[in-house]
Amino acid sequence: MNKRLFILKIGGRVIDNTEQLNTILDEFSKITGPKILIHGGGDTASELSKKLGIIPQMVKGRRITDGDTLEVVTMVYAGLVNKNLVAQLQSKNVNAIGLSGADGNTILAVKRPVDEIDFGFAGDLKDEASSNHSLGIFLENGLTPVFCAITHDGKGQLLNTNADTIASYLAKSLCGKYRVSLVYCLDKPGVMLNPTDQTSMVKELTPSSYEELVSEGIITAGMIPKLDNAFSGLRLGVQEIYLCDWKDITGGSGTKISLL
Amino acid sequence: MNKRLFILKIGGRVIDNTEQLNTILDEFSKITGPKILIHGGGDTASELSKKLGIIPQMVKGRRITDGDTLEVVTMVYAGLVNKNLVAQLQSKNVNAIGLSGADGNTILAVKRPVDEIDFGFAGDLKDEASSNHSLGIFLENGLTPVFCAITHDGKGQLLNTNADTIASYLAKSLCGKYRVSLVYCLDKPGVMLNPTDQTSMVKELTPSSYEELVSEGIITAGMIPKLDNAFSGLRLGVQEIYLCDWKDITGGSGTKISLL
Repeated sequence: MNKRLFILKIGGRVIDNTEQLNTILDEFSKITGPKILIHGGGDTASELSKKLGIIPQMVKGRRITDGDTLEVVTMVYAGLVNKNLVAQLQSKNVNAIGLSGADGNTILAVKRPVDEIDFGFAGDLKDEASSNHSLGIFLENGLTPVFCAITHDGKGQLLNTNADTIASYLAKSLCGKYRVSLVYCLDKPGVMLNPTDQTSMVKELTPSSYEELVSEGIITAGMIPKLDNAFSGLRLGVQEIYLCDWKDITGGSGTKISLL
Repeated sequence: MNKRLFILKIGGRVIDNTEQLNTILDEFSKITGPKILIHGGGDTASELSKKLGIIPQMVKGRRITDGDTLEVVTMVYAGLVNKNLVAQLQSKNVNAIGLSGADGNTILAVKRPVDEIDFGFAGDLKDEASSNHSLGIFLENGLTPVFCAITHDGKGQLLNTNADTIASYLAKSLCGKYRVSLVYCLDKPGVMLNPTDQTSMVKELTPSSYEELVSEGIITAGMIPKLDNAFSGLRLGVQEIYLCDWKDITGGSGTKISLL
């Protein structure tokens, strides 16, 4: 039977919260066997942009990545956030290694074609899984990859790629070799029927209940790409996928995404 | 006989010069066998500090690294500069992997003790070589480490360490396993008797000629730590050390540092 691989995606808000982040990293460090952490950027990128007089441009919840913005996100995601996470994990005896998709050619992306909107240096992931030669070397030798949301096009250009997308991409491309558990750590306990009622969490989300909640307007824009990716991951062989909050990063108490 | 390992340190000025940098990376990509690149930061760190209202403080040619400055150098060195170098090397078919000393626990440093001057988050390298377990894995699997000048203390704290020191530290710690060639790429052809006369380059520098040139005031402050490190590297078994400029990164036409 294949070995288990644990993949955890943490978002911006928990990164900005020292106490929550420390709890997550403590729990993550206790997980045995191969594991991968993927992180968003937090508010630091927008704050730094503002200080530098670069006005963040968002269209449909996505950042437009012009040249200056690419520099800012490369500095914040791949530099400040990534290296501090790695140093903290090292202090908790995890042999972490911080990566962008350019490092070891781990994630190759294509610049998003200009359609109605020019997203600038935004990178979309190719459908076919890359060989992940380097990633295999890291995982087989006890190293724990920590991915930021920067990729490259193989021609020398860095690109800004959604961290949720990177998480499901890695889960999909590694589920042939490992039994993959993918957990998205959110700022709420899971999918909520009523955002103000903590007891309204959906224990299990299937394609039909998902469709229903979208049509009722309960699941909205921000969650849809994440959940679409999750269902496609399950269909491609990812063993299990959970949404949860920082209190339980193994997902057990959160929303289980399920095909049944 | 041990395999050859080529270690190249490039400084800030060539990083800021697109044409020179591209030539260097082209030549570096042609070098076969295991190799390591170490880079400084260029003027970007100082420029970013200035834009953010952080006044760079230098004492005896060394930057005082307060908390804000550490954030800036982590963003610029480990993020912007490192990831762009990695992406460019990948486009030249080098399977580069960008590293701080925290990544894979490759370089463990200690915060410089406060004496007359408090250098803040400056990291000194311990005398004993670390095991470099991760570095061995990278080199044996065809990955090319690209180091920035950020290290860590193993307790979760990032530190700012001189890139020249990192270069000689890596050369020393790997020369038991490899025949190490260490090349410092400068903004001049080598050690110059007269900085304005390109023909005044010293072909070979020995401990006695070095002492003489220091006492005559020809070799000055900025070069002394680099050359002290170079001589100590040779004594510890580094095979060859050169200083050169961007036109010939294998060192042959530059200044050879020699014990004889």
